[in-house]
Amino acid sequence: MTSVEQSALVAGDVTARERIFEAVLGLCRERAYDAFDVGDIARLAGVDEESVRAGWPARNVLVMEALLYAVAPHMKFPRTGDIRADLEQQLAATARLFADPGIGPHLRAVIAEIHADERLAATFLRKVYGPNRTVARARFELAQEQGQLRTDIDLDAAVDLAFGALWFRLLLGTGPLTPELAASLAEHALAGLGVPAAGDRR
Amino acid sequence: MTSVEQSALVAGDVTARERIFEAVLGLCRERAYDAFDVGDIARLAGVDEESVRAGWPARNVLVMEALLYAVAPHMKFPRTGDIRADLEQQLAATARLFADPGIGPHLRAVIAEIHADERLAATFLRKVYGPNRTVARARFELAQEQGQLRTDIDLDAAVDLAFGALWFRLLLGTGPLTPELAASLAEHALAGLGVPAAGDRR
Repeated sequence: MTSVEQSALVAGDVTARERIFEAVLGLCRERAYDAFDVGDIARLAGVDEESVRAGWPARNVLVMEALLYAVAPHMKFPRTGDIRADLEQQLAATARLFADPGIGPHLRAVIAEIHADERLAATFLRKVYGPNRTVARARFELAQEQGQLRTDIDLDAAVDLAFGALWFRLLLGTGPLTPELAASLAEHALAGLGVPAAGDRR
Repeated sequence: MTSVEQSALVAGDVTARERIFEAVLGLCRERAYDAFDVGDIARLAGVDEESVRAGWPARNVLVMEALLYAVAPHMKFPRTGDIRADLEQQLAATARLFADPGIGPHLRAVIAEIHADERLAATFLRKVYGPNRTVARARFELAQEQGQLRTDIDLDAAVDLAFGALWFRLLLGTGPLTPELAASLAEHALAGLGVPAAGDRR
């Protein structure tokens, strides 16, 4: 047995997990949200259906976690020291993911199930919303410490103000999700949230 | 036949329509979105089920129109001449409706069906989003003419910036919808969108 094979065995669970996520993402790129089932996922991942069912309580939870797996590497809020540049980057990355036909429509579909599915809602809050909110709040707090953001604001309202419009367009399907929109949102949100000296370019 | 009976006959369709909407809203106040059907609506409205089915192609379209009927009187964007006061009023009215247990959860539930239901999506765009967007754009344009709002902004992005956070919280269930949030959003959005002379109170 080579050391590569050995480490694959040791890391067996992780690898199967990743293969399953990749299978879900592959299916999301090719099919609509409702057009594949756990059997399709298992076949494409090369695992048996029972092990998929053992790992996730429901198909929608698995799809949400797979989308998170795809999205997470792109959601690290930059920390260049310039909150305007960093927020624009983060909004642009979010807009790009939402506009991706293999991600946006499926994210929208799975989130649509939250209101009627408490387990899915709990997964969303714990694994998607919570960590993302923590990262965004921490970045906004750093900007406050660096004198780039007003300190008299409710941080959750500030983050909602900056990111709410992108979610609005994703979930309601009312307008395009473009880098131009991201830039415009970053500028206008920060003009309202920033302190005049650092955040205001009017 | 009295003149009252006569006018009720002449306006018969309108009256039945209103009774049906009121029945839906009554059920929404008492039950979850999925916990009543067209039969319940017809019984409470005192009409036969067939006439309900003849008027609306699907239950979700009827619920959406009934919610619109409840919400529309509260959605007339004020025009006092002060965009900050008017936007705060409009955001507060929206937050109040979203926080109403007889409206918010049902609006969230019916909107969750948009992504998989083209007819419902078309109804939403034509009857809910379209008219509301037209009113909001017109109010923002007036503020531009009155020198209270920057003219170098994309109006749809500006409206999304102002209202997106409320929709974010309604659809994702991530935070309370309060008058304080509305006031904070109005202030921060307008600091970014307003012209310094009139819109900036920092």
